[in-house]
Amino acid sequence: MTDRLLELFEQAEGAFISGEDISSKLQISRTAVWKQVERLREQGYLFEAVSRKGYRLLAKPEKLDIARLLAGLQTERFGKTVKYYDQVDSTQTIAHALVQEGAAEGTLVIAEQQTAGRGRMGRKWHSPKGKGLWMSLILKPNLPLQLTPQLTLLFAVALCRTIRNVCSVEAGIKWPNDLLIHGRKISGILLESSAEDERLQHVVAGVGISVNLEKEDYPSELLSIATSLAIEAGHPIDRVELLCRFLLELEQLYGLYQEKGFGAIKLLWELLTVSLNRPIRCQTAQGVVEGISESIDDSGALMVRLPDGTLHRLYSGDVEFR
Amino acid sequence: MTDRLLELFEQAEGAFISGEDISSKLQISRTAVWKQVERLREQGYLFEAVSRKGYRLLAKPEKLDIARLLAGLQTERFGKTVKYYDQVDSTQTIAHALVQEGAAEGTLVIAEQQTAGRGRMGRKWHSPKGKGLWMSLILKPNLPLQLTPQLTLLFAVALCRTIRNVCSVEAGIKWPNDLLIHGRKISGILLESSAEDERLQHVVAGVGISVNLEKEDYPSELLSIATSLAIEAGHPIDRVELLCRFLLELEQLYGLYQEKGFGAIKLLWELLTVSLNRPIRCQTAQGVVEGISESIDDSGALMVRLPDGTLHRLYSGDVEFR
Repeated sequence: MTDRLLELFEQAEGAFISGEDISSKLQISRTAVWKQVERLREQGYLFEAVSRKGYRLLAKPEKLDIARLLAGLQTERFGKTVKYYDQVDSTQTIAHALVQEGAAEGTLVIAEQQTAGRGRMGRKWHSPKGKGLWMSLILKPNLPLQLTPQLTLLFAVALCRTIRNVCSVEAGIKWPNDLLIHGRKISGILLESSAEDERLQHVVAGVGISVNLEKEDYPSELLSIATSLAIEAGHPIDRVELLCRFLLELEQLYGLYQEKGFGAIKLLWELLTVSLNRPIRCQTAQGVVEGISESIDDSGALMVRLPDGTLHRLYSGDVEFR
Repeated sequence: MTDRLLELFEQAEGAFISGEDISSKLQISRTAVWKQVERLREQGYLFEAVSRKGYRLLAKPEKLDIARLLAGLQTERFGKTVKYYDQVDSTQTIAHALVQEGAAEGTLVIAEQQTAGRGRMGRKWHSPKGKGLWMSLILKPNLPLQLTPQLTLLFAVALCRTIRNVCSVEAGIKWPNDLLIHGRKISGILLESSAEDERLQHVVAGVGISVNLEKEDYPSELLSIATSLAIEAGHPIDRVELLCRFLLELEQLYGLYQEKGFGAIKLLWELLTVSLNRPIRCQTAQGVVEGISESIDDSGALMVRLPDGTLHRLYSGDVEFR
């Protein structure tokens, strides 16, 4: 039904169509017309409704131009195989299934919309249609399990550098891998890894970037803690360009890391972070940790100076600035 | 067909049945009779064959007495839910599926026989019928990913202590988690873990113990490197008792570890290992490492003193004694 409605609007080429017209052409009630228009709105179509004139289609949801993506990619492996979906529950779920089928390192799963996007600690990730980059990248690093958290930091560094370069906004990294602009979150990174004894088998890296979301796209409870690149930059961002640059940055840093180790990545992370030398508070399984965040160690843990002068190693948790 | 053949032998109550008799009763050729008997032999049935008398059944494969297991278990959680199978491809595969269905910590999958038992680094694990303990235990430790290798060592400690106590044989741990008696392998431990960023989600711990295998049960290429508890102890071992004791030891050490950390486990491991203070050689992704194994560190890595006097941290690999 929405397909037939869209057809009518396409034929009208931006002119108004009255509800009565639609109703008779599609043989549905006026209420049903309104419902169908609402459904299209949820999918990212933009309509103007004027009483006595009816509706006209102002804009269609933007689709990622995959041909342009593949043409623009300067990587050797990352994103060279792309699985592109209009709507999925979660790109992570699809990527895990692809791993089971033997997908190669660098395979990218990307969707215009996730209906059940996953964040850290079982939280949901808001991923509306056509406005962000919601993706999962398959990696098969030949790494000891103990070093996986270094990869988590590497992802944050690659994304932060890309966003700064492409959008000219002051993004910073909150330990371990959240990206913030003016204290509000613009991306989420979630590395799901599988290991056999002390060797990593594969990693499915989920990356969500809120690119062109507008304030109206956020549920009200998220507005104070989340933002988008478009809101911060003051103009829409070309998603294809952002993605090409991110995959290249990521592949280069990953290569550097595989070859030379964590040293350079750690330095870059420290340059880009907003989490060091601040009074912090963190709820852990062992209780609340409060102190001054001093550094990260080679395992990616946050070293916190406690009030009694000792250093506490924080492996994971949600850190609050006090 | 094997079912009907077994029925005949059951009715004979240990007396000989001629091949001709079987052939006419089952309406199959003499060659087919021989093939069916061989098939039963592979499943652990023991036959005597005497020319002109025929075959008689001497022993049936031992089945784990699950009722006795559940009655004998002194654990609080480990093994309280048991999934018992006659034959599976791999208990690991089944345990992973159970995790997806929400199985509780401590759930045990155990099989009389594995047709595709998995070992470290994609190797096969020889798991013939009724002779061993082939199992997988589901754990959901609240641990940072970096500490998973400590769990690997914990499993080796628990199994080594159990075997020493129950069988009075001199088992020792080869880093990280192989158990050896007189230089031959008697068990394999494989921890397959899943993590979300820096937090472990679950671990499926595969443990294979060669309990009552006899020399004839090993393919010839394994005889020089593998042995069983029965061969080393000189008598069969009660699998149910061994399993009860192992699960209890494991649960107690796991509780100690969760509460007090790695210190005590590390001490026990060092007491039981055969891997320290020896000239070793190890092929790693970065090349061959040769030196003297000095200690393990808190991440479970093996610290190797190189000829130039520096210490090398070995995260994983197959260590050879020189």
